[in-house]
Amino acid sequence: MIKIGIFGYGNLARGVEAAIKKNDDLELVAVFTRRDASSVKINTKGVNVYNAKDVLLFKDKIDVMILCGGSATDLPEQTPELVKAFNVVDSFDTHARIYEHYQAVDKNGKANSHVGIISTGWDPGMFSLNRGVMEAILPDGKTYTFWGKGVSQGHSDAIRRIKGVVDARQYTIPVDSALASVRNGENPVLSTRQKHTRECFVVAEDGADKARIEREIKTMPNYFDEYDTTVHFISLEELKKNHNGIPHGGFVIRSGETSNGVKHVIEYNLKLDSNPEFTGSILAAYARAAYRIANRRDFGCKTVLDISASDISRYTTEELLKHTL
Amino acid sequence: MIKIGIFGYGNLARGVEAAIKKNDDLELVAVFTRRDASSVKINTKGVNVYNAKDVLLFKDKIDVMILCGGSATDLPEQTPELVKAFNVVDSFDTHARIYEHYQAVDKNGKANSHVGIISTGWDPGMFSLNRGVMEAILPDGKTYTFWGKGVSQGHSDAIRRIKGVVDARQYTIPVDSALASVRNGENPVLSTRQKHTRECFVVAEDGADKARIEREIKTMPNYFDEYDTTVHFISLEELKKNHNGIPHGGFVIRSGETSNGVKHVIEYNLKLDSNPEFTGSILAAYARAAYRIANRRDFGCKTVLDISASDISRYTTEELLKHTL
Repeated sequence: MIKIGIFGYGNLARGVEAAIKKNDDLELVAVFTRRDASSVKINTKGVNVYNAKDVLLFKDKIDVMILCGGSATDLPEQTPELVKAFNVVDSFDTHARIYEHYQAVDKNGKANSHVGIISTGWDPGMFSLNRGVMEAILPDGKTYTFWGKGVSQGHSDAIRRIKGVVDARQYTIPVDSALASVRNGENPVLSTRQKHTRECFVVAEDGADKARIEREIKTMPNYFDEYDTTVHFISLEELKKNHNGIPHGGFVIRSGETSNGVKHVIEYNLKLDSNPEFTGSILAAYARAAYRIANRRDFGCKTVLDISASDISRYTTEELLKHTL
Repeated sequence: MIKIGIFGYGNLARGVEAAIKKNDDLELVAVFTRRDASSVKINTKGVNVYNAKDVLLFKDKIDVMILCGGSATDLPEQTPELVKAFNVVDSFDTHARIYEHYQAVDKNGKANSHVGIISTGWDPGMFSLNRGVMEAILPDGKTYTFWGKGVSQGHSDAIRRIKGVVDARQYTIPVDSALASVRNGENPVLSTRQKHTRECFVVAEDGADKARIEREIKTMPNYFDEYDTTVHFISLEELKKNHNGIPHGGFVIRSGETSNGVKHVIEYNLKLDSNPEFTGSILAAYARAAYRIANRRDFGCKTVLDISASDISRYTTEELLKHTL
């Protein structure tokens, strides 16, 4: 059994916890929180919650620590720090800062003989793995990534910060015609507006100026101004009833040629009922890889691009050769 | 530059040759054939064709030999033999015999300090890689593989062997309703007949008994008897005009749950203008991996399941972290 710790306990951590139950070689041994540990109730019987400051007491009791904090402020500090004492896996997803994060984790991992697997999940993660493989097997081509239909937590939060908004849910939706053109191997040049639309479900305070709220949403820089955005005002009951889940998904498509006029289209797509549960399930599989790579003493930072399918699989080489290959 | 040899020169080899031109770190240095070398014309200027029996003269002149023979009789002999002298890549695709082939290549590769990457292509190959990763990240689920729409060379050959048949082309076609059910996460139980249909375009000799030919096709054991098969008789001109390509493709789909009722669907699909060119392009990428793995002295047999995306990629770690991840 591979002994797993979870550091930080929110939606993603609950996804990791569910995933551990689906993998009979993984065992949850402790959860760490910065909140009052006695106030945190987890879903696994017989496992205790500890305060984050006591984490080093578990240095020899945990094979792999799965970090479930956020990418904005938690992981840039926690991953390089915890890799000094543990093999770690995180889901750091600020694309622009991945290289910097990689270097910090690599340095501390190598200096302390641990493995750190960063940016695991579905994007970055499975989508990255597919982009990397597609580019290698079809070098003369173009790769497209579409997200959705799914809830963007960041965009929903941005709407909630507008004056007069009680709650909101934002769906990112790929544009069908763009997707069809890419799938058809047409290699279109697509602007931001041509790839995705944004649909918002907003609960406004009684008497709030809905026209102003809609205008503020549609003109919000970076978040909405470059997109065609639709805003629906609904009741809190309707939001809770119809928009309670955290579904997501998306598409990675590469099309290209192997010789003049000979075209190929490669597609990977996901349709997810729960973004945090699926992400958690991926983190669990890469925790298995972290354990194995550490046993081979191949220390430092890794990403999904550096790790083979057999290292994340529960199956033996013989089983994989006979049943999966 | 990685120096590549091609062993055997048919459709697949021409695909590998085209792929080498698309990868600026790969260089074709020699082609080997069992035919009269002077009779074989290749598509790369300045590269010579040699007789297969002279291959050992190139022992120190070739970094990776790509084997382009057939799986029935060529590769079971050639791959274990040539891995004694070269790093090799093959596309061995007899699923039932892969484990045996692996063991033979692994033994000789380790004994002679070479790497042998077997069963590279799209199935086995990319489909296997996706099956392996999907199973690992979504352990509680079911995986489905559909092939087509595409030309099955084996089935086309089987029809050609029927008395009175001049030429034939057989398309394997996934059943739309089965594909839709799988994509919808319904986890159906599907018989062979429910997954694929077979469509045959047949050129008959003048005066041949078409009813008999159609009956012989539809009742042919293993090849057609378990499928719903349609037979069209057409002219040789029509066959040459409309059925000259070797397109193929297919789908790998896994659906499953991460907790009770929380479903996810993962799909990988290919749409290929030319089966041998796409397969050749994959072999070229794995030749790069064979070279790198041999440089790390990690000898023996590998499959796509053992090899990371970064090992098949032209890009550096920094480029991958900044642009692909």
